[in-house]
Amino acid sequence: MITVKALVLEKGKVLLKETPIPIVSPGELLIRVIYGGICSTDLEMVKGYVPFSGIMGHEFVGVVEKDPEGKLEGKRVVGEINISCGDCSVCRRGLKTHCPERKVPGIKNRNGVFAEYVTLPRENIFPVPEEVPDKDAVFTEPLAAGLEILEQVHIPPSSSVGILGDGKLGLLVAMVLAEAGIETIMLGNHPEKMKILKPLGIQGLIAKDFQGKMDFLVDCTGNPKGLEFALKIINPRGTIVLKTTVAEQTNLDVGVLVREEIRLIGSRCGPFGPALRLLQKGRLPVEKMIDKVFPLSRGIEAIEFAGKRGVKKVLVEMER
Amino acid sequence: MITVKALVLEKGKVLLKETPIPIVSPGELLIRVIYGGICSTDLEMVKGYVPFSGIMGHEFVGVVEKDPEGKLEGKRVVGEINISCGDCSVCRRGLKTHCPERKVPGIKNRNGVFAEYVTLPRENIFPVPEEVPDKDAVFTEPLAAGLEILEQVHIPPSSSVGILGDGKLGLLVAMVLAEAGIETIMLGNHPEKMKILKPLGIQGLIAKDFQGKMDFLVDCTGNPKGLEFALKIINPRGTIVLKTTVAEQTNLDVGVLVREEIRLIGSRCGPFGPALRLLQKGRLPVEKMIDKVFPLSRGIEAIEFAGKRGVKKVLVEMER
Repeated sequence: MITVKALVLEKGKVLLKETPIPIVSPGELLIRVIYGGICSTDLEMVKGYVPFSGIMGHEFVGVVEKDPEGKLEGKRVVGEINISCGDCSVCRRGLKTHCPERKVPGIKNRNGVFAEYVTLPRENIFPVPEEVPDKDAVFTEPLAAGLEILEQVHIPPSSSVGILGDGKLGLLVAMVLAEAGIETIMLGNHPEKMKILKPLGIQGLIAKDFQGKMDFLVDCTGNPKGLEFALKIINPRGTIVLKTTVAEQTNLDVGVLVREEIRLIGSRCGPFGPALRLLQKGRLPVEKMIDKVFPLSRGIEAIEFAGKRGVKKVLVEMER
Repeated sequence: MITVKALVLEKGKVLLKETPIPIVSPGELLIRVIYGGICSTDLEMVKGYVPFSGIMGHEFVGVVEKDPEGKLEGKRVVGEINISCGDCSVCRRGLKTHCPERKVPGIKNRNGVFAEYVTLPRENIFPVPEEVPDKDAVFTEPLAAGLEILEQVHIPPSSSVGILGDGKLGLLVAMVLAEAGIETIMLGNHPEKMKILKPLGIQGLIAKDFQGKMDFLVDCTGNPKGLEFALKIINPRGTIVLKTTVAEQTNLDVGVLVREEIRLIGSRCGPFGPALRLLQKGRLPVEKMIDKVFPLSRGIEAIEFAGKRGVKKVLVEMER
């Protein structure tokens, strides 16, 4: 049996293991992974917030090793992470990312990408444009999640717009909005992180020092206190987009929502095509977000390092 | 001193009192009130949920007694309840109903309409079309609140739409949506109330027996459990409009909002013009919602009666 190295989560423990090379089901492609990106969701799963066992990881760039139709072999690709059934009432209404039967590599009922090889359905595969470096391409998935905001709501040019939280997703959301021509203020805690956004003309402010009010806020804090703070600085008829799942229940004053006619909008996965086109423009300083690249053989260390306070993006390189 | 009878809330007690006839400030009109309508907010204030002292009531129809410009004297009118400063940054952005300095008759820093006479700024006054009976006109304000939903969101014809709560506001919201051509199901608890909606083709179901899922829900339950239930029966990417302020804090699983990309939209006061045009069509069975009309002299009893379980609309008639 051919085996491949993989970073596996088992009973809350991260292990480096030899696993069987994945079997390519009909309609799927075999991909040799180049880089994987560690996301906050991966870290939450290690903490046990999301129950999962198997190969970790969902952000990656790779090269198609085997395509039964031959078309994509040798091409660099990224992959949309929601593997939907295509057949239920939700899928038939076009809401494939919300399929109740969906599988998600490294998150739900499907092996992930922190391995030498991974398989994915053809419809989840997006070729990466030539101009996009490997390390940039790893950011396609979280950038798409940022673009989802623009799929869901219209932000008029006269709006005051703030991003709460200067973590990985916050920085990427700020980039997405700036590239959409939306003037954005980042309300964070780490001047050194917010500095990355300077070339895009995004002002960074320390959140607790902010005095004004905003029409539009994106909560990327990953903390129940983020919504609480957002409700304090949102204008009447304002919109708060919730970008991060919070494990805890939040005590919410629903009365404020009604009196001030606030909109709360939950936002999750987004479109890969526009994300790749954004990266193709070459203006996003995503590589500046990478703190360290670990080889897969040091994957356990990579996960530990990614969980440290203040660390931004950590990549895992599937060297052979 | 000329005095007029009024229903006054003082330290949580409802009193029938002789009060000075209101002074007409510049830019205001004096209105002789015909009918006042008792709203759930009035009852909440008696319970002390909203702090207020003074003449109660905000829903009314009356006749202009004195208009310094003469134009409206003798005309039947209703009145928009948000009396904004017109000068702050919120007002200047056109969000007058959200003016932080706003006064609201019978609710906030301004005497209400359960009195023989009331004054209101000219800009708050709307003449009532001839075809609209007095008792129908009292429903202008809550109907406008229902129309606010259509100001805020677009409901595509293919959506499944449900109203939660067959109280006064729930019934009116159902009427508004039906007249906008939106197929609506009422999820309530009282078949005898929901029956009122039959002529409009609105199906009434007992909420707890409902098995399906909805794309669009309007929570008119006035109860924190309403939102909890809504989150159970909302489709992915669905919209929940919150129509009633709830005094209690609600424990909300924000994670569900994000994972399912749910929109929560708070909704309060709405446009009077469209509400009057709706009434003018004469198709809304609003009079069927009136349980009883009390003379002002029995106003205390009227408030008590309106608070009884299952009672719909109660009017107060300002007989002289």
